[in-house]
Amino acid sequence: MSFQGIKEASMKISDVANKTPVMTSRTLNSKLQAEIYFKCENFQRVGAFKFRGAYYALSLLSEEEKKTGVITHSSGNHAQAVALAASILGIHATIVMPKGAPANKINATKNYGAEIIFCDNTLEARSQTTEKLIEKYHYFLIHPYDDNNIICGQGTAAYELIKEIGELDMVIAPLGGGGLLSGTALAAKGLCPKAQVFGVEPSMADDAYQSIQAGYIIESTYPNTIADGLRTSICERTFNIIREFVDQIVTVSEKEIINAMRFLWERMKLIVEPSGAVPLAALLSKKVNVNNMKVGIILSGGNIDIEPFFQLLEKRVVKL
Amino acid sequence: MSFQGIKEASMKISDVANKTPVMTSRTLNSKLQAEIYFKCENFQRVGAFKFRGAYYALSLLSEEEKKTGVITHSSGNHAQAVALAASILGIHATIVMPKGAPANKINATKNYGAEIIFCDNTLEARSQTTEKLIEKYHYFLIHPYDDNNIICGQGTAAYELIKEIGELDMVIAPLGGGGLLSGTALAAKGLCPKAQVFGVEPSMADDAYQSIQAGYIIESTYPNTIADGLRTSICERTFNIIREFVDQIVTVSEKEIINAMRFLWERMKLIVEPSGAVPLAALLSKKVNVNNMKVGIILSGGNIDIEPFFQLLEKRVVKL
Repeated sequence: MSFQGIKEASMKISDVANKTPVMTSRTLNSKLQAEIYFKCENFQRVGAFKFRGAYYALSLLSEEEKKTGVITHSSGNHAQAVALAASILGIHATIVMPKGAPANKINATKNYGAEIIFCDNTLEARSQTTEKLIEKYHYFLIHPYDDNNIICGQGTAAYELIKEIGELDMVIAPLGGGGLLSGTALAAKGLCPKAQVFGVEPSMADDAYQSIQAGYIIESTYPNTIADGLRTSICERTFNIIREFVDQIVTVSEKEIINAMRFLWERMKLIVEPSGAVPLAALLSKKVNVNNMKVGIILSGGNIDIEPFFQLLEKRVVKL
Repeated sequence: MSFQGIKEASMKISDVANKTPVMTSRTLNSKLQAEIYFKCENFQRVGAFKFRGAYYALSLLSEEEKKTGVITHSSGNHAQAVALAASILGIHATIVMPKGAPANKINATKNYGAEIIFCDNTLEARSQTTEKLIEKYHYFLIHPYDDNNIICGQGTAAYELIKEIGELDMVIAPLGGGGLLSGTALAAKGLCPKAQVFGVEPSMADDAYQSIQAGYIIESTYPNTIADGLRTSICERTFNIIREFVDQIVTVSEKEIINAMRFLWERMKLIVEPSGAVPLAALLSKKVNVNNMKVGIILSGGNIDIEPFFQLLEKRVVKL
């Protein structure tokens, strides 16, 4: 896996993925005395960057593998991404989901045409169910981040951003399992080697920060951060890429994440999920200094349950 | 006022207004079997199309008028638009606001550098306070829609949309006082005469629909629709333009407005205020048939109080 892989991924997905817009805020730029460019993956298909990696990885399968089908276990954006990518490519997809997954996520995944197999709500049950199905049907496992092709696919967001905006001084991405950050770092260092690459994770799920400090992987145990897309821990593959190509890892509090989200919603009119607001949280809390810099941020996704807000709104309506 | 005015307005504001993006939704297009293009004025400065008209009207004032200053009475997007436009042009702006206006709107208007004069919460108090100030200081009144230059400015949104996307079969705008719809109709009929132009208003504030039926203006009395930007009634000027250039006026229920908003938030990740969701409400409720058509919609703005949602969110956070 290399910068070349990201270039190839970018070409491969260009007809199918959304060309997501780059957005800016005058208020933010003047507040931070910087030029901040947001690559808006909340406008990507399935509402998150995950579609990039999933589609790229699936498109590279052999005809034999495509015929056999793919499997993944996830209750989040990766599940929907695999389901949609498989449906576009005519591949059978099986998604293992915990019984307790939110109804809207189950329905979205179903609507993309995937087969859903429910399991108990533990991580062990998920792995075991998945393994059994692989043993029985020989499905090809699409891991959400421990996979070179997935990483190359995720790197296309930063690749497109830099191609559009030109050289950047810094690129910042959220950090969960490390797939997006790894791809972002490879793309950034490939296109503008002088750019610094920062990863930001919730302090409540700071396994990558801890691991880099220690020099070996320390997994998070049941982190309960509101940034639900970042609860996963890094793996050997992403740990090694991050060690080599990422300049710094920064952590932010839950309150800082919510305040960054508030800015994105209120001032920029963008629906961004907590995980997507994490890089901006590092800027607004002054944990990363961007003074006079040209900075790219990957706004990773916009999938958040807005029903509670609409229920409040409906109460305000006099006649329905 | 004519199509030529809109062209001039478009040139005049091009350096200062945001070039707002045009967005689409695959889901929506396949659901309606149509091509729907949203001109996203929620991404305009001050969060709404109102900046276009305000800036254009203010830019055309004589040096004498600029020195004297401008005034308007509003508690909504027009107030913020006049405040920002005046500040950019170095003009003193006075905004008459009801005491009961929401704190966030008062602060936003203040932050743009306008002088705020509070009055009682009635429409009469607003007009009287404004008239007294005009008498005393000779301020130039910037009406939110009963003004040819304001109408030309608002028309630049549709103008830009059609310039970008090409010929359309239909253009739809929300309808309150009629400024946006009038400008939209002039722009659309000027650029593609065959395009149909529709205005959509809440059935709870259907003064324009009633007026067109009757052939004379029937004002709404205290309409309590959730689409707060559309509570105002049309005036002689907008009534005449609408009669001449708008093909049809459609009304939608409060529930239909909220459901359209839900689609824009959940599926398109766009924060749009209720007034901005009204045209889509007419499509989703099948009150306007767009089958096989290429349709432009003006998403008028995104200013809605999201604090109740963030308060719910903060409750979910374990540690702050």
